Amino acid sequence: MKKDGRGKKSEIEDIYPGIVRLRFGSPEKFTPSFFKRPASDRILSSMPVPKKSHLDIDCIEFRKTSRGCLLEIPLSSGEDIYGFGSQMKSFRQNGKKRTIRVNSDPPSDTGETHAPVPYYLSTAGYGILVDTARYAVFYCGTHVKRSSGRNSGGGKAGCLSDRTEELYGGSDSQSRKVVMEIPSAKGIDIYLFYGDTVLDALRRYILFSGGGCFPPIWALGIRYRGYTKLDQEQVIQLCESFRNDNIPCDVFGLEPGWQSKAYSCSYEWDKVRFPSPDRLRAGLKELGYKISLWEHAFVNPSSPVYGKLRPFSGDYLVFNGLVPDFSIPKAAKIFADYHEKEFVRNGISCFKLDECDNSDYIRSPWSFPENSSFPGGMDGEQMHSLLGILYQKTIDDVYIRNNIRSYGEVRSSHCFSAPYPYVLYSDLYDHREFVRALVNCGFSGMLWAPEVKHGLSKEDFIHRLQTAVLSPLALVNAWTMVHPPWKQFRRAENQRGELMGDRKDLIAVVKKIFQFRMSLVPYLYSAFLRYHLEGIPPFRALVLDYPDDLKCREIDDEYLVGDSILAAPLFAEQQKREVYLPSGGWFDFNTRKFFQGNATYEISPKLDETPIFVKENSILPLSSTNESIDKDTCFNLTVLAFGDNPEPFKLCIDDGTTFNYENGDSGWMELSWDRTAGKGVAKIRSNCRIKRYRISKWDHVQAASVSVAGACGGEVQ
Amino acid sequence: MKKDGRGKKSEIEDIYPGIVRLRFGSPEKFTPSFFKRPASDRILSSMPVPKKSHLDIDCIEFRKTSRGCLLEIPLSSGEDIYGFGSQMKSFRQNGKKRTIRVNSDPPSDTGETHAPVPYYLSTAGYGILVDTARYAVFYCGTHVKRSSGRNSGGGKAGCLSDRTEELYGGSDSQSRKVVMEIPSAKGIDIYLFYGDTVLDALRRYILFSGGGCFPPIWALGIRYRGYTKLDQEQVIQLCESFRNDNIPCDVFGLEPGWQSKAYSCSYEWDKVRFPSPDRLRAGLKELGYKISLWEHAFVNPSSPVYGKLRPFSGDYLVFNGLVPDFSIPKAAKIFADYHEKEFVRNGISCFKLDECDNSDYIRSPWSFPENSSFPGGMDGEQMHSLLGILYQKTIDDVYIRNNIRSYGEVRSSHCFSAPYPYVLYSDLYDHREFVRALVNCGFSGMLWAPEVKHGLSKEDFIHRLQTAVLSPLALVNAWTMVHPPWKQFRRAENQRGELMGDRKDLIAVVKKIFQFRMSLVPYLYSAFLRYHLEGIPPFRALVLDYPDDLKCREIDDEYLVGDSILAAPLFAEQQKREVYLPSGGWFDFNTRKFFQGNATYEISPKLDETPIFVKENSILPLSSTNESIDKDTCFNLTVLAFGDNPEPFKLCIDDGTTFNYENGDSGWMELSWDRTAGKGVAKIRSNCRIKRYRISKWDHVQAASVSVAGACGGEVQ
Repeated sequence: MKKDGRGKKSEIEDIYPGIVRLRFGSPEKFTPSFFKRPASDRILSSMPVPKKSHLDIDCIEFRKTSRGCLLEIPLSSGEDIYGFGSQMKSFRQNGKKRTIRVNSDPPSDTGETHAPVPYYLSTAGYGILVDTARYAVFYCGTHVKRSSGRNSGGGKAGCLSDRTEELYGGSDSQSRKVVMEIPSAKGIDIYLFYGDTVLDALRRYILFSGGGCFPPIWALGIRYRGYTKLDQEQVIQLCESFRNDNIPCDVFGLEPGWQSKAYSCSYEWDKVRFPSPDRLRAGLKELGYKISLWEHAFVNPSSPVYGKLRPFSGDYLVFNGLVPDFSIPKAAKIFADYHEKEFVRNGISCFKLDECDNSDYIRSPWSFPENSSFPGGMDGEQMHSLLGILYQKTIDDVYIRNNIRSYGEVRSSHCFSAPYPYVLYSDLYDHREFVRALVNCGFSGMLWAPEVKHGLSKEDFIHRLQTAVLSPLALVNAWTMVHPPWKQFRRAENQRGELMGDRKDLIAVVKKIFQFRMSLVPYLYSAFLRYHLEGIPPFRALVLDYPDDLKCREIDDEYLVGDSILAAPLFAEQQKREVYLPSGGWFDFNTRKFFQGNATYEISPKLDETPIFVKENSILPLSSTNESIDKDTCFNLTVLAFGDNPEPFKLCIDDGTTFNYENGDSGWMELSWDRTAGKGVAKIRSNCRIKRYRISKWDHVQAASVSVAGACGGEVQ
Repeated sequence: MKKDGRGKKSEIEDIYPGIVRLRFGSPEKFTPSFFKRPASDRILSSMPVPKKSHLDIDCIEFRKTSRGCLLEIPLSSGEDIYGFGSQMKSFRQNGKKRTIRVNSDPPSDTGETHAPVPYYLSTAGYGILVDTARYAVFYCGTHVKRSSGRNSGGGKAGCLSDRTEELYGGSDSQSRKVVMEIPSAKGIDIYLFYGDTVLDALRRYILFSGGGCFPPIWALGIRYRGYTKLDQEQVIQLCESFRNDNIPCDVFGLEPGWQSKAYSCSYEWDKVRFPSPDRLRAGLKELGYKISLWEHAFVNPSSPVYGKLRPFSGDYLVFNGLVPDFSIPKAAKIFADYHEKEFVRNGISCFKLDECDNSDYIRSPWSFPENSSFPGGMDGEQMHSLLGILYQKTIDDVYIRNNIRSYGEVRSSHCFSAPYPYVLYSDLYDHREFVRALVNCGFSGMLWAPEVKHGLSKEDFIHRLQTAVLSPLALVNAWTMVHPPWKQFRRAENQRGELMGDRKDLIAVVKKIFQFRMSLVPYLYSAFLRYHLEGIPPFRALVLDYPDDLKCREIDDEYLVGDSILAAPLFAEQQKREVYLPSGGWFDFNTRKFFQGNATYEISPKLDETPIFVKENSILPLSSTNESIDKDTCFNLTVLAFGDNPEPFKLCIDDGTTFNYENGDSGWMELSWDRTAGKGVAKIRSNCRIKRYRISKWDHVQAASVSVAGACGGEVQ
């Protein structure tokens, strides 16, 4: 028990080594923690207590107001903060007001986004989660308080400008506090996650959430969502055509057209377009595809579950459909049981959970109002925050109880979402913002899919695809495209059937890019296992691994993929870009050239070369081409050993599709480089019957061979 | 006393004939009504009770929630609603969610704007004001509630579309309720204003607010705000040059550069640029100019009032300046006394009150946070709603006690603002939105200035000017323009001193437009008196005068000026536009052609002709050119009598600058047309010593002379 500045008591509870909960006042019942998955208890308990706590708990102030309650948490000098979920418009959050309100089309940098999280991570080595489903507001050092004396005349006070931007421009006297306002609540729990490094603090948040998701191995292949008006024969034909053209693809996604009613949903096959779902499933299975079904949670009056869900639904309709209250176990069970019987047990591998976000900024906002009442006790504000999470949980539970791993798409999420096997996406389409969202999501234990729909030019289309294959989900979403976008990347022309004359060249590039993704699957699979077990995001900002490198604190157009790859995507028609490489040595993956770190280089990769750098002294296993991945797939590996002293790399072995690895049906292949013998060594320890990898070749890439000297801030010399 | 749906009691109080207050629960202390001006008691008491009440009070439901409180008010079929203050992005508000939150740069149609008002007006003949300074949300028939039975499968439920706009497009099953949510409050007062017509209901709202403002007569002339970096000699030279070029101008506005510190404000003359304010005042007075001073309410540490205001200020700084709490009479008095002594008694005629709004959507948001505390008891949310009002009141009180009428500019306002002599403006610059805001403001008893700053083309610049002179304030805001914009309407070129070669032609057009404004001053002055005494907005939507004409319910690009003029502005490079004319006959002001109403025409006015129509059977007095207006100005009138049976028109006579008219020092000149004699008659009844008008000419314009037949929806034949 301690007292805050106004004499109010706060309770302090040590949850795990390095995780503390502070309780102020009387928190609300329905908060993110109320619904969260169990923490990764074993590893959290075994992690050593961080050497210092980085934040003086005694400095935290709490106060109830007529609007709700208020927290003030100090920021120290030099401390940079990141996080708040899927932020698309900014990276470093100092000086910003963040409104944690789910919204699909944030018009400017307000903090609103598809998956906003009341949580930030500090370079000082801690993270703070405010456990609320309210639309909390975070003022991240934005405002200066009136001091007891006369405030100085500094800042912009003396300026005379004829430009509004200057008059309103950032003040040079930022405050050193994060002020958080939680509306309506009479109290609040906050969770502090400490670490000896910022990544360490983040790992604690992710492990407390339950650890990162571990997708089935096929889910790391290519996913294609087809035109919404296709019928089942057209789907099968399209899937066949990919195989005929040797275009890798693992998952075919059906958009709204598979349902008899969508907007709102019937969750029943449309009898005209899909007269025999059995035949569709068999056909796609034979071709090596998994099926993903689109849906949202709004239940059409014609749906078989409508009657049962009525009493468990909110008091407002959306698209004339019920909004089921998944916070009520009975409601979730009705929905889950139906999905289990109709889809999961019939071989549907994953779902795309659409429109569980909200919309205030589009022309026709559509979701339920914040004043809604739900029978479980939440109101519309709380439900908007948590619908994405509850929806993921409801469907995920079905797969778990069937011992099937799934990996779907979802349009909204919130706190503690790491364990749910869902990747965020949106209807927005700014490539630069997609990359920023991907990078930012790592701070909150989330995954973002920079899906590819169409392109403004060949370069734009290819650059987008290159980002997609260097992301958690290699997704092409052609729901408005009658033909695959590589035959015509412009939407209107595509819909009119005007295919490009030179499409063969483009298809060759697309295939190369997809094959590159497929070659990374073993590497990514191992990175995801670390996400799951150790809480290290497979896709993350440079600042997480290089927190003391001030340059990295600003970089949101490069990111790490696993532990050894740095991605530096190009945008639109760019033919070159600058890349900052942090300390150490780096190899250009495509040219094998060596670059000294701590320097900025200009690169100009060829259009068909996805621009990545590989860290010196790392081992990168690459699979030769698979067009799809099965549970029995054996990856044929070429292993690249970079640098003079490569560190070993562990490939994960399991059945790839179930949770049996949790019971020991798993193992690993360790790849290492024997310097003395000058050759690679592979060791296997596995209880799994699957032979997952075969090594066909080792290749040693050394700095001496081709080397590029660079100066900090300079160009290639 | 009555009970609402949940058994909670509401108190009903009849305030005036046709004005009812309902009290639900325990309202907050600080609400708009707490600070409002006294109602126009005499006329409100004398207005007859409306014949029907249009709204069944028993159907209003109230409920407290964890978020605040909730009101549900039925909408009947065919009822259209308007209002909510200075809405820029939509007109008819049915089907919209309105968030009543002051914001300077609303990114989309959310309801946020500079002067949002928790008030709407229904075509059924009533207005509803929710008396709150909270960020209330109005769901205007947006959402459908789950009914007790199975909802029909109608709406968009069955659609299959490949376009997001269609999927999210407006539902065809809108609800018939306005649901209002008031955050944090435990109770609420609402005011119902009834009328036999919608205009009648609106008049009650305006009169309850205290009646519309009545500007000094010179304020209806041209106002020019000069480049912010001008020094006093440059100001005098510029003012002289206008006179030399015979460019009408009444008020010269000084932008931030007049102060020693701005952003935040010192409220002291800058000693370098303005070494002798006395000389400036004398010089401008001699040239026939009034002076307007720019300021905002954030008090710089160097200001003489800083020390005194410190204890009466909010706990956060803005631009490193204090935020005085004008809700505290002592704080208002300090600020007011200083302004009185330094400026009002020294001949400063009006102020431009900047930045009393808020900003969440710009790159560098700058105002105080919602969690601010003010010593008077309000929080930041309430202060954001009311700062504009309190600021206007503080300055207005100074002028009132000095028996001087003023007419300034303000960047934010709220409920009950009609009596404050301030016109709203903004940093936005979409001409179409400016006109919509001007039209919408009328519904809430507000005035909007579509100020002219620069132009994208000659046509754009002229069309903007034409709107400005047909608005409450004919304002050119050249604060970023080194030279008058008619010498170079492009900003960058203007700042570089690159004047246009053909500027003489443009200047001639500008003069003609300004002269046209000056000719309307007597007409406008009388319209403003009716605003003041009778509550009829001088600038208003067609639907207010023609509520049963369904076409008028959608028209927000035409508006009425006074009782006889219909304005139909052109935008950007438009050379023609369609104009809908309501029932009755109309004369094109420029061509004198007659148009039958209830029809749509295409017009293509010349670039130097401001497109207006004059109602048949009305009398329009036009003044011959004045370059500026003095208290003794005698307007030289040409009186146009339109149609066979013109109704008399009353011109207002008073001293034009004081409140002495309230004590009978006033009168009128009635203009009428003697059909039999075929000549005009002017009758004067006045106690005022001023001879305000002289009639030099009568002109009878008849339909027979030049007539145009038109069909509904058709073009000119």
